[in-house]
Amino acid sequence: MIIDRLIEKINATGNPTVVGLDPRLSYIPAYITEKYFTKYGNTKKAAAKAMLKFNKKIIDAVYDIVPAVKPQIAMYERYGTEGIKAYESTVEYAKLKGLIVIGDIKRSDIASTGEAYSDGHLGCAEINGEKFPGFPHDFITLNPYLGSDSITPFLKDCKEYEKGVFVLAKTSNPNSGELQDLICDGRPIYEHVGALIEKWGQDFIGSYGYSSVGAVVGATHKEQAERLRAIMPHTFFLVPGYGAQGGTAEDLSVCFKDGIGAIVNSSRGIIAAHLKDEYKLCYNDERNFAMAARQACLDMKNDLRRCI
Amino acid sequence: MIIDRLIEKINATGNPTVVGLDPRLSYIPAYITEKYFTKYGNTKKAAAKAMLKFNKKIIDAVYDIVPAVKPQIAMYERYGTEGIKAYESTVEYAKLKGLIVIGDIKRSDIASTGEAYSDGHLGCAEINGEKFPGFPHDFITLNPYLGSDSITPFLKDCKEYEKGVFVLAKTSNPNSGELQDLICDGRPIYEHVGALIEKWGQDFIGSYGYSSVGAVVGATHKEQAERLRAIMPHTFFLVPGYGAQGGTAEDLSVCFKDGIGAIVNSSRGIIAAHLKDEYKLCYNDERNFAMAARQACLDMKNDLRRCI
Repeated sequence: MIIDRLIEKINATGNPTVVGLDPRLSYIPAYITEKYFTKYGNTKKAAAKAMLKFNKKIIDAVYDIVPAVKPQIAMYERYGTEGIKAYESTVEYAKLKGLIVIGDIKRSDIASTGEAYSDGHLGCAEINGEKFPGFPHDFITLNPYLGSDSITPFLKDCKEYEKGVFVLAKTSNPNSGELQDLICDGRPIYEHVGALIEKWGQDFIGSYGYSSVGAVVGATHKEQAERLRAIMPHTFFLVPGYGAQGGTAEDLSVCFKDGIGAIVNSSRGIIAAHLKDEYKLCYNDERNFAMAARQACLDMKNDLRRCI
Repeated sequence: MIIDRLIEKINATGNPTVVGLDPRLSYIPAYITEKYFTKYGNTKKAAAKAMLKFNKKIIDAVYDIVPAVKPQIAMYERYGTEGIKAYESTVEYAKLKGLIVIGDIKRSDIASTGEAYSDGHLGCAEINGEKFPGFPHDFITLNPYLGSDSITPFLKDCKEYEKGVFVLAKTSNPNSGELQDLICDGRPIYEHVGALIEKWGQDFIGSYGYSSVGAVVGATHKEQAERLRAIMPHTFFLVPGYGAQGGTAEDLSVCFKDGIGAIVNSSRGIIAAHLKDEYKLCYNDERNFAMAARQACLDMKNDLRRCI
C-alpha cells in the first residue's frame, strides 16, 4: 500500500511536511530567470524552464529531510503545454530523488471521463494493447462533488498500480463553508463527504491502520478537523493552509492521532522562504534560496513536532 | 458578452447542440490511426496526432450546422503532454472555423491557485509585463465545491477578456445525488449551488437576459432541471447526458424557456455515430465517419426542436 510507504517516509525523516511546489516567477531568483529569458526571450517556454530549474534546486535541498512534495498543476497549466512539460519533469525528478509525489490536480468527472483522467495521472493509457504510464504520481487529489461513481475509476487504478488519492473534504479557503458547512440530516456536508471517503478507503487499509484513500482537511478550521479525525479513523489527512493561509501547528495538531495520521503542506512558506524577513538575513545571496527552503522545512518540522 | 455570441450562433444554426469532442482511439477509423502508428509507432504522440486529425475532420463536417464544440480535456490528458498539444490544436482549429469553444476542464481550487488556472484557460499569463493568452476557450466548466472565492478569479477574467463559465450544479451521472441531492434548509445542495451561480452571474447579463456565468444541468434529471430553470431565470444551461447517458429531448426540454436558455451536449452520439447501427448502413465506408457525425447533428437538431 502506498500509504504505508508515505507513513514510513514520514517516520524516517521525522517530518510530516509536504513541500508544495507551486512556483511563481516572482519567487524565482533573477540569476535563474534571466538565463532562460536571455535564451528563449519572454516566452512560456522560458518561464517553464525557469520553474523546472527552480524546482530541481528546491528538491535537491530538501529531498533528504521531507517525505514528499506536492506540485500544484495549476501553476504549470498557466504556461500551457510548456508548463505541463515542466510539471512532468518536476514529478519525474522528485521520484528520482526518492520522494513521494502528490499531484495536486483536483480532478473530477463522470465515470467514463474519470477513467481518462486516471489513465493520465495514476494508471496507464492503452495503445494497441501496450500500456503507457501517465505522470508518475504516487497520489493525486480529487474533488467529490459528483459522488461515488466519479471516484471509482481512480480507486480501480489505486488497486492495480498501488497508488493513492486525497479527496477534498474540508478545504482551507475562506469561503469553504459556503457549501461544505451546510447542514443535512444533522451534520455538515464535509462530514457526509468524510463518511464517503472512509468508506471508499475500506479496501485500501495498510499496515498502520490508514488507507490509501485520504482526505484533504484544511489547517484553518480546527473544530471541523477535530470532528473529522474522530469520524474517519482510517483516513490519512493531507492538511493545507499552514503558514501563509493562517493555520498554526496548534490548530492542525488535531489532525494527528498518536503522532501520525496526517501530512501538512506548505508551499510559499518553504519555496519562497528566501523572500521572507526571517530568512533574508541568513540567505541574502539569492543563490542560496534553496538553503532557505531547507531551513524553512526544518523550522516547520520543529514547529509541528512541538504540537503533535 | 460571450453569452450573446453563443445565443446568436444557436439562433443562426437553429441548433442548440454542442458537439462533445471526447475522442477515444476506438472511435477513430483505422485509415487514420494506422497512418500515425506507422509513422510514430505505438506512442502517445501517434495517439494524440490521430485524435487531432479525427477532430479536424469532425469539425470540418459540422462547423456550419452547430454553434459550438466542447472538447473534454481528460481525453487528452490521458496521453500526457502530447495529448495536451492535440487539445490545444483542437481548440485553435475550432476557433478558426468560427465555433464557440467550451473547454470542459472542471477545474477548481483556492483563489491564488484558481488565478493560475484562469491564466491558462481564460485569461493571460504575464511574463515580464507581457501578456500571453492561454488556451483560446470561450467558456470553461468549473466545479463549485470550494465556494465563491474559488470562482472569483475566473469571473475577473470573464470580465477582462469577455469569456464565460459553466459551473456544475446538477451533474448527469448516476451517483450525482449522493451529495448534490442532500437537503439543507429545505432545499437540495444543487439548488444552493444554483442560487450561487445566479448570483455570480449578476454582472454578466447580456442582451438576451442570460448571463455569461452558466450552469451544468444534466439531462438525466428532469424534475431537478425544471426546478433549477425556475430559480435561475438568468442562467444559461449546458446540458450533458443526452443520448448515450439516457437523457431524452422530452426530459431536457424543461431546461429551455421560450425556445432558448440552454445548449445540449452530445459526444459519443455524434463523434462515434459511424459505429452505431442506424448510421452504419448509410456510411459504411469508414472514410465517411465525419458525414455520419454531420447527419447525427442534424438528427439531434430535429429531435430537440420537436420538444423545445
